[in-house]
Amino acid sequence: MAVITVLGAGMMGSAFCVPLVDRGHDVRLVGTHLDHAIIESLRSRGFHPTLKLDLPPSIQPFFVSELEEAARGADILAFGVSSAGIRWATETIAHHARPGVPLVMITKGLELDGEAGRLLVLPDVVRRGLPEEVRTNVSPAAVAGPCIAGELARRVPTSVVVTGRDGEALDKLAHALRGPYYHVFRCADVIGAEVCAALKNAYAMGVALGAGLHEKKGGAPGSVAMHNWESAVFAQAIREMMRVIGMLGGDPMTATGLPGVGDLDVTMNGGRTGRFGRLLGLGIGAREAVARMEGATLECLEILDVMRRALPAYEARGELGPGELPLLRTLITVALEDAPVEMPFDSFFGA
Amino acid sequence: MAVITVLGAGMMGSAFCVPLVDRGHDVRLVGTHLDHAIIESLRSRGFHPTLKLDLPPSIQPFFVSELEEAARGADILAFGVSSAGIRWATETIAHHARPGVPLVMITKGLELDGEAGRLLVLPDVVRRGLPEEVRTNVSPAAVAGPCIAGELARRVPTSVVVTGRDGEALDKLAHALRGPYYHVFRCADVIGAEVCAALKNAYAMGVALGAGLHEKKGGAPGSVAMHNWESAVFAQAIREMMRVIGMLGGDPMTATGLPGVGDLDVTMNGGRTGRFGRLLGLGIGAREAVARMEGATLECLEILDVMRRALPAYEARGELGPGELPLLRTLITVALEDAPVEMPFDSFFGA
Ligand SMILES: NC(=O)c1ccc[n+]([C@@H]2O[C@H](COP(=O)([O-])OP(=O)(O)OC[C@H]3O[C@@H](n4cnc5c(N)ncnc54)[C@H](O)[C@@H]3O)[C@@H](O)[C@H]2O)c1
Ligand SMILES: NC(=O)c1ccc[n+]([C@@H]2O[C@H](COP(=O)([O-])OP(=O)(O)OC[C@H]3O[C@@H](n4cnc5c(N)ncnc54)[C@H](O)[C@@H]3O)[C@@H](O)[C@H]2O)c1
Repeated sequence: MAVITVLGAGMMGSAFCVPLVDRGHDVRLVGTHLDHAIIESLRSRGFHPTLKLDLPPSIQPFFVSELEEAARGADILAFGVSSAGIRWATETIAHHARPGVPLVMITKGLELDGEAGRLLVLPDVVRRGLPEEVRTNVSPAAVAGPCIAGELARRVPTSVVVTGRDGEALDKLAHALRGPYYHVFRCADVIGAEVCAALKNAYAMGVALGAGLHEKKGGAPGSVAMHNWESAVFAQAIREMMRVIGMLGGDPMTATGLPGVGDLDVTMNGGRTGRFGRLLGLGIGAREAVARMEGATLECLEILDVMRRALPAYEARGELGPGELPLLRTLITVALEDAPVEMPFDSFFGA
Repeated sequence: MAVITVLGAGMMGSAFCVPLVDRGHDVRLVGTHLDHAIIESLRSRGFHPTLKLDLPPSIQPFFVSELEEAARGADILAFGVSSAGIRWATETIAHHARPGVPLVMITKGLELDGEAGRLLVLPDVVRRGLPEEVRTNVSPAAVAGPCIAGELARRVPTSVVVTGRDGEALDKLAHALRGPYYHVFRCADVIGAEVCAALKNAYAMGVALGAGLHEKKGGAPGSVAMHNWESAVFAQAIREMMRVIGMLGGDPMTATGLPGVGDLDVTMNGGRTGRFGRLLGLGIGAREAVARMEGATLECLEILDVMRRALPAYEARGELGPGELPLLRTLITVALEDAPVEMPFDSFFGA
């Protein structure tokens, strides 16, 4: 059994600990400076306030001030922070990184390297942030695939992939993480898995527009609604994920499995993103829709903004045609530029 | 504008007429011997009793006894019957089939050629049923992709593919069918499109098992349920569709678009199949689940039965390994052999 230290005690970081303690690992959950209330609640009552659930008492909660103790002797280090916390987490954990200790992240997102005009997957962002002496020996890995944190924390059977550039490390990692209800598959294509993980939030918002459009016309939820519209958007989303993966040098087929199809499907059920897309579909405008989400982190807006800045660079180099990714471009104008929802179906599917 | 004769006035056959009359075509909807009440209602009140909707009066309803009149001078013939009616429809329409008149079907299903031990897509079944003198010149086409009949009939934007072996005929057909809210794309891979169209019912039943399992454990519908479970099944379903398509000589990539991903997604919302899967997931047994569906046609059971008979032939020829298609095999045992639902996740995704 291994010592596993998870940095970030939000919903997903904490849920991730559940299959690991169930496997018998020594699991240490470290809250960030934003997670004090969570760690306090876990220490005093064993209750996770955002998951709204008692966690197994064998998960050991630590305040960020106790990180050194929590990370000592760790066999696996994990990032449970969201993308906003990636830089902080990298700096914080950097001196614990060493060859043979996998660094695994559940964080999702893409970053734009503005100078190079190229998108970077987060494992590569983290790697760049590591001290030079370990950078060449530590290859950060990531988890992707359909996983609602609240379900994993309740031990709902969950299938994910673990991806990274170091095949051998991946084998060991998958073996360590895998458990009776946490099915962990290996995926050699880190670009593909991470592109899907990041883009699925944007595309899920796109599918959810349909519910709002339907409501706006006076429709009620039910089996006859705007599902034809939504499913065409869903299919085009997978097509566009494949295209972006190819553009970044990954394997487009990755989008057909857990990280693409699976994760996009689950995100349609998962809450925030769907609610936000519905609000946009209602036509109340992007600003008002954001306001009604009451400060919830909207990763869909983050990734759309990254893509809005990235696309011109890829076009300028001739790596993307101006008519490609019509759905993504529509979502950018709807969510970031307050354009009305007009889905350009006739330009979908390579037409 | 064209004369289009649709044989079969069920929900989908009738819905299909709506975008066609809106395009200005001369559309004749012929009920089968089972559709008398529908045609009567359309004639007397313009109301379609199973779609629960008034249809545009420009759609001309015909009784089956008036078929000759309705089919006279048709530029396009369409089958709106379900798979049980395919043979009858082929025989009935055979003497109207002639080169240059596309024969297009919305029917979904696969048949097993028992002697050859090979699966046939319906356009090929229909072709075999045509008189020899036209068989070589008429290449039946089919429509596939995410389309809930009740939504198309209400002019919800809908994207489908039209597929067939005759590329030139396909171009013309797509052009004739396409309209402002009916987006018709061409798909050259008839095997892939038809395999998806048929199998998606079985796999949609599989995804829907999750809702039943969740309820059985006392869970309520909501954003924290069994979605992780369902989405892994969804992703594996796409993988298996790709495998079956490859086994039949089609292009596995077809499963990543409208006919596979899109149609499986829409079917999760569409009613019967989902309700039936949920009942099975509740663990009440296949017989009781069928009984509670009160005689609704369950295309998922038909296709599972076909696949149960077909798989051994493909295995015997070494075209399929005994461990392949683990999800489909599980669905066969659950729905046809009353086995309990135990999803073999660890054998999914090529593990
Ligand atoms: N919730 C899910 O179902 C789910 C599923 C799969 C993946 N994820 C991914 O996991 C990540 C976390 O999501 P979550 O749902 O747990 O969110 P959350 O809001 O519950 O937790 C966010 C975590 O990030 C930390 N954080 C946020 N901003 C920070 C900053 N500026 N500096 C340092 N730390 C910061 C918080 O302290 C907290 O630990 C996201 O990237 C998300 O996409 C979430
Ligand atoms: N309903 C949908 O949303 C939808 C969407 C896409 C495709 N389809 C496909 O369209 C086909 C028809 O589905 P539907 O929903 O319209 O069903 P339905 O029950 O409303 O109509 C069935 C049609 O088939 C005819 N039929 C049935 N058994 C027959 C027999 N033994 N001989 C002759 N005719 C017979 C009926 O008379 C009727 O015209 C199916 O293959 C289905 O998969 C349906």
